[in-house]
Amino acid sequence: MWNNAKDRALRDRAAQVIPGGMYGHQSTALMPDGFPQFFTRAEGTRITDTDGNSYIDFMCAYGPNLLGYNHPEVMRAVRDQQALIDTATGPSPLIVDLAEAMVGMVSHADWAMFCKNGSDATTMALMIARAYRDRRKVLVATNAYHGSLPWSTPRPGGVVPEDRAHLIYFDYNDPQALTDAAKQAGDDLAGIFAAPFRHDTFADQTLPDAEYARTARRIADEQDALLVVDDVRAGFRVTRDCSWETIGVRPDLSAWGKVLGNGQPISSLLGNDRARAAASKVFVTGSYWFSAVPMAAALETMRIVRDTNYLEHMQKIGGMFRKGLVDQARDFGFALRHTGPETLPMVLFEDDPDFRLGYAFCAAAMKRGVYLSPYHNMFINAAMTEADISETLEATGAAFEDIKRNRDSLKPSQVLMAMMET
Amino acid sequence: MWNNAKDRALRDRAAQVIPGGMYGHQSTALMPDGFPQFFTRAEGTRITDTDGNSYIDFMCAYGPNLLGYNHPEVMRAVRDQQALIDTATGPSPLIVDLAEAMVGMVSHADWAMFCKNGSDATTMALMIARAYRDRRKVLVATNAYHGSLPWSTPRPGGVVPEDRAHLIYFDYNDPQALTDAAKQAGDDLAGIFAAPFRHDTFADQTLPDAEYARTARRIADEQDALLVVDDVRAGFRVTRDCSWETIGVRPDLSAWGKVLGNGQPISSLLGNDRARAAASKVFVTGSYWFSAVPMAAALETMRIVRDTNYLEHMQKIGGMFRKGLVDQARDFGFALRHTGPETLPMVLFEDDPDFRLGYAFCAAAMKRGVYLSPYHNMFINAAMTEADISETLEATGAAFEDIKRNRDSLKPSQVLMAMMET
Repeated sequence: MWNNAKDRALRDRAAQVIPGGMYGHQSTALMPDGFPQFFTRAEGTRITDTDGNSYIDFMCAYGPNLLGYNHPEVMRAVRDQQALIDTATGPSPLIVDLAEAMVGMVSHADWAMFCKNGSDATTMALMIARAYRDRRKVLVATNAYHGSLPWSTPRPGGVVPEDRAHLIYFDYNDPQALTDAAKQAGDDLAGIFAAPFRHDTFADQTLPDAEYARTARRIADEQDALLVVDDVRAGFRVTRDCSWETIGVRPDLSAWGKVLGNGQPISSLLGNDRARAAASKVFVTGSYWFSAVPMAAALETMRIVRDTNYLEHMQKIGGMFRKGLVDQARDFGFALRHTGPETLPMVLFEDDPDFRLGYAFCAAAMKRGVYLSPYHNMFINAAMTEADISETLEATGAAFEDIKRNRDSLKPSQVLMAMMET
Repeated sequence: MWNNAKDRALRDRAAQVIPGGMYGHQSTALMPDGFPQFFTRAEGTRITDTDGNSYIDFMCAYGPNLLGYNHPEVMRAVRDQQALIDTATGPSPLIVDLAEAMVGMVSHADWAMFCKNGSDATTMALMIARAYRDRRKVLVATNAYHGSLPWSTPRPGGVVPEDRAHLIYFDYNDPQALTDAAKQAGDDLAGIFAAPFRHDTFADQTLPDAEYARTARRIADEQDALLVVDDVRAGFRVTRDCSWETIGVRPDLSAWGKVLGNGQPISSLLGNDRARAAASKVFVTGSYWFSAVPMAAALETMRIVRDTNYLEHMQKIGGMFRKGLVDQARDFGFALRHTGPETLPMVLFEDDPDFRLGYAFCAAAMKRGVYLSPYHNMFINAAMTEADISETLEATGAAFEDIKRNRDSLKPSQVLMAMMET
């Protein structure tokens, strides 16, 4: 029987020593009531909360879990490397091996730099674009998430207008809006940031229009600016290359993170020769950027990406999840919008403007052992099996039944409503 | 016999796939010729390069190595935690344990947030100071290092003037300069950044003047702004508390990193109740900020910090190193300036304006198995023994003899001279 007594006790302690009780993307403040905040185990496709409740986890650590938690081969590489060298006074040769491996795998890339946060990689891209021709203006799609530093964080606290003085916003997938923004930047255009597809919270995902992508490439070429694809969220879940390779458009820079080390902390910026000199002009660094263990994990992860059918398997599993959910919804009289790549599914209910259906559905599924998000794209991992999806659909079937039965008494989330008002 | 054939071969490969061959603080571009770039082992007090040369390491990974590389108790905590949960869909209870432990150890702190880079922690401090009373101006000591994001990186590449529009610089340790800067900020003063002591590269270190520190505190109080101590570099090497506790001045925020996990990737921002509401207003996060393994390492590191004489031992070892070097220098007819805390020594030669003596000395010591820096403060770790210092002094004695013999033929570093001209 699901309960969360220990989780609630931990929240009380956390409220004393952590501002707001928790922060950042892993705070469950915005999740449906009762969603566990703390977890004690993660193995394969499952996470276990402090009260011992186990869940099939469709958030995958918000991305990093690509191959399954505690993956035996990746963790063997981690342990072997830990015995040799990790964080030290210089990098290990693995930094060269890993740069070569990424350059070998990602078509547009001639070089690699490694860092820790996705924000590190996107900020390096911002700086390198500006250093490239000593210009200032950078085009960014409205609402696209590129990290949580002052220039990019989605909330206003602690941000001054100057942090974004030279950013020009445009509507994703709109070639005309992009063209207008580039015109506005004129001969001060440094770079164009592109999300591989639109994956904003609380919204349907939208795949990139090829014309839009080609327009971005053409403008960058014509105005001698750098095109950046932020693949931190989607990398290696769309293709074994930069995600825009699927539509035939190559950026100058691409930002990577999350999946690279299957949970070991590493991110990366890749670039082409055009951007190389600019990349060597910026001074960027971090205490742990040269640590060897996450690079060993990344090398093993990339070997698996290269040599196995992990991607095709994830696509099949993601397809089963999608079809199963949509069919169930129809059977119970609901309509779902299941958008984006099947490996990064966003699931929203039709006719649910205040998300009360989605919230109640996810809460009901959670109590039956399936961890879904009502507002953020989810993630498939390669350890998921058909049996996991069957078990998931059993839980979601019961969840649909629940919300159908209680439909008239469902209320919107108070926290969500308060946030939406600001 | 020291040689670096494999290191040079790796550098050739790196030059193809990493901009400039290497980047950031672990690039040896500015070190004396021949300094190894790549290392394959780190154990206790020693690092081994790719050619099999072993060094007593006085850089300690530029800080993180506090207790010795591959420390048995810290690594046991790491392995035990790896079997349970690391990077997952939520934090583990360890985030609460660790926040409580830090609040228990650091006098000014009522709460903690965790992140990865030192830059994350200092940037959170910047944002929280601005969010506190919705003001913009932040006072920063000229040349103080607070990270490598656009607002703080020490080199101009990729930085636009707006990144620092609301920073006001003052001379470290000068109460009048600080007072003038605060006056300039007026009622828009958000915060004051203080390094625990001055530790700029290529310069003597200066301990904080108590009057300067008290002035900083007084101004923050009078103008209702937040005082920040950036303890990323010096934390737990000066005292088992915030470094300014030694002079009786408590900040509102302190930034921590490097030593926290003895090499496992974790940094932290601590704050008091005055700053709590502002801290909960900023949205900051990172893919790996909630990972449990570095928190397990940090908890074990803090246990050792609390329960052992690691600090007194480091102070004794650092004192031996200082006295030994200064005595040797005098015996060979050189004068050294050995500044800063003995656990974070900066060693510069008198009468060495272009650093040729320091560079030649460090190169000679390096070839005899002792890794020193001619321009950056060094770090003592708690695994160092009196035998390590004896072995070190044997190498440095020979190095002094070397540079005395070759004094007239020494040349300044070309790379350094080129950098100093820009």
